[in-house]
Amino acid sequence: MKPYVIGVDLGGTNTVFGVVDQIGNVIADNSIKTQKYATAAEFVTAGVECLKPIIERVGGLNNIQGMGIGAPNGNYYKGTIEFAPNLSWGHNGVVPLAQMFSEQLGGLGVKLTNDANAAAMGEMKYGIAKDMKNFIVITLGTGVGSGIVINGQLVYGCDGFAGELGHVIMVRGGNGRQCGCGRKGCLEAYCSATGVARTAKEILTTSDRASVLRQKPLDTLEALDVNIAANNGDEVAIDIYNMTGKMLGEACADFTAFSSPEAFIFFGGLCHAGELLMKPIRESYEASVLPIFRNKAKFLISGLMDKNAAVLGASALGWEV
Amino acid sequence: MKPYVIGVDLGGTNTVFGVVDQIGNVIADNSIKTQKYATAAEFVTAGVECLKPIIERVGGLNNIQGMGIGAPNGNYYKGTIEFAPNLSWGHNGVVPLAQMFSEQLGGLGVKLTNDANAAAMGEMKYGIAKDMKNFIVITLGTGVGSGIVINGQLVYGCDGFAGELGHVIMVRGGNGRQCGCGRKGCLEAYCSATGVARTAKEILTTSDRASVLRQKPLDTLEALDVNIAANNGDEVAIDIYNMTGKMLGEACADFTAFSSPEAFIFFGGLCHAGELLMKPIRESYEASVLPIFRNKAKFLISGLMDKNAAVLGASALGWEV
Repeated sequence: MKPYVIGVDLGGTNTVFGVVDQIGNVIADNSIKTQKYATAAEFVTAGVECLKPIIERVGGLNNIQGMGIGAPNGNYYKGTIEFAPNLSWGHNGVVPLAQMFSEQLGGLGVKLTNDANAAAMGEMKYGIAKDMKNFIVITLGTGVGSGIVINGQLVYGCDGFAGELGHVIMVRGGNGRQCGCGRKGCLEAYCSATGVARTAKEILTTSDRASVLRQKPLDTLEALDVNIAANNGDEVAIDIYNMTGKMLGEACADFTAFSSPEAFIFFGGLCHAGELLMKPIRESYEASVLPIFRNKAKFLISGLMDKNAAVLGASALGWEV
Repeated sequence: MKPYVIGVDLGGTNTVFGVVDQIGNVIADNSIKTQKYATAAEFVTAGVECLKPIIERVGGLNNIQGMGIGAPNGNYYKGTIEFAPNLSWGHNGVVPLAQMFSEQLGGLGVKLTNDANAAAMGEMKYGIAKDMKNFIVITLGTGVGSGIVINGQLVYGCDGFAGELGHVIMVRGGNGRQCGCGRKGCLEAYCSATGVARTAKEILTTSDRASVLRQKPLDTLEALDVNIAANNGDEVAIDIYNMTGKMLGEACADFTAFSSPEAFIFFGGLCHAGELLMKPIRESYEASVLPIFRNKAKFLISGLMDKNAAVLGASALGWEV
């Protein structure tokens, strides 16, 4: 067994590459902008360039056991990204990303999974879920992703794509918001960082409520602005978190009817809101869930967010090759 | 190992007791009306009376290895029925049913699970899912139940209650139909046999469309009437199946986002409608599901419905004691 693996967190905005040792330290990392490239081939070439200096830091490819990638719509069984709605170079077909990286890295073994599954692996190996057998990680970033663990195993389903909880339908009948996946009313269209920004724009354009959010041009509003405003007591911003948390709590109530997890673990940028988001999630969940499940599930924020959990989780796949 | 086990299918209407041999033949069976009793104790006493003649048929309790019960809101870990919304003697608390039967059956080992989980065990052991590792059984009876198999294992969750897919919310915002669980808008309130009868009553009272269903007093309309009418080409009855199938297909699309099963297996009285129900389910599913999942899942009707699959599935637990 060689001493290092590479972990890759392929997100909607940034792709982070990390070299990880056998006890889970990220020795070196580097990143590129995910959407800057017109084709998957250009993305892979840029990724390999980005990897070179950090691979050299640990003595070259000869010291790397394998590579694991966490990516949206990643298929564990096939090593592909398939019809990833939020990737400019990946929404329109099947990208054999594991093979493409392997070919440019001297035949290095490369495995790939859903980015949120990688986060769940990180929680199970290094994080808050070390002692849990049944939990669900929900990632609140550019999109909404999920990694589901049942009986101590990641759920991949029959085709490797299970765990797309950002795409359950929360608003039915064709009245929901357009989602990047081509359908309407998905959880992701409301509760991702982009969904939160859309909620802000909706409130600001359909009401005349006072808010510091009006100081910025509407087109430039981001979830981070809502976070700052809410922390400063802005009532519109606080309402936005209440609405977001209410829907997340209702969605989690349905997820519990499925697998009755011990905990929901939230991960990603929106979680920096802390109790502003977690309190309405918990309240909505307890008010919505089937009575037999009340007051059982824990609602936690990942402790690994500053520690590259997604890179760590993905890197664990590198030991499997 | 003794030569026989007892399997019990505790349904909203009937409770069927069967003595089963080691290769899955139901040697003898008998039944009682589930809701005829004021208390759980009276139900158990009646059940034991009902069991006596069929136990005698195989030479008495000495020849019985154990007993398995499939019951609504059944808890595998604890052997209890907890807050079962559709049971007159079980909706209001925790009934230690496994222990109660054991005490009246000379200390016989008794295990208990969700009735739909028992059906899923039956499909996996004797039925259409023999070669599947990821599938979901959906029971369409008095209520809507589910048994979920992932990686070849029944999903029980952290508390033993996972797999309550009849209680995901399909109509949100407080506008849904009242469900027996105390909440509004559950799948079960629309797509169970009672839900189908409610849909019929709604259409007949809010429109003047011609239908043979009008020949019966509204209060006495049942799902079976809708089935007969639809088979005779009654357009209102066919529409009722289309509406029911549409919602089931949308719900299954969400379930696929969770566990991406190889197949959905439908079980229970409503399935006698055959293609009248299955065709709108499939069409709605394929129109609703996330693009990466299209044209993958199979939609099947249990082949075990006339063979006491629930009794057989529950009986399998009897060998575990």
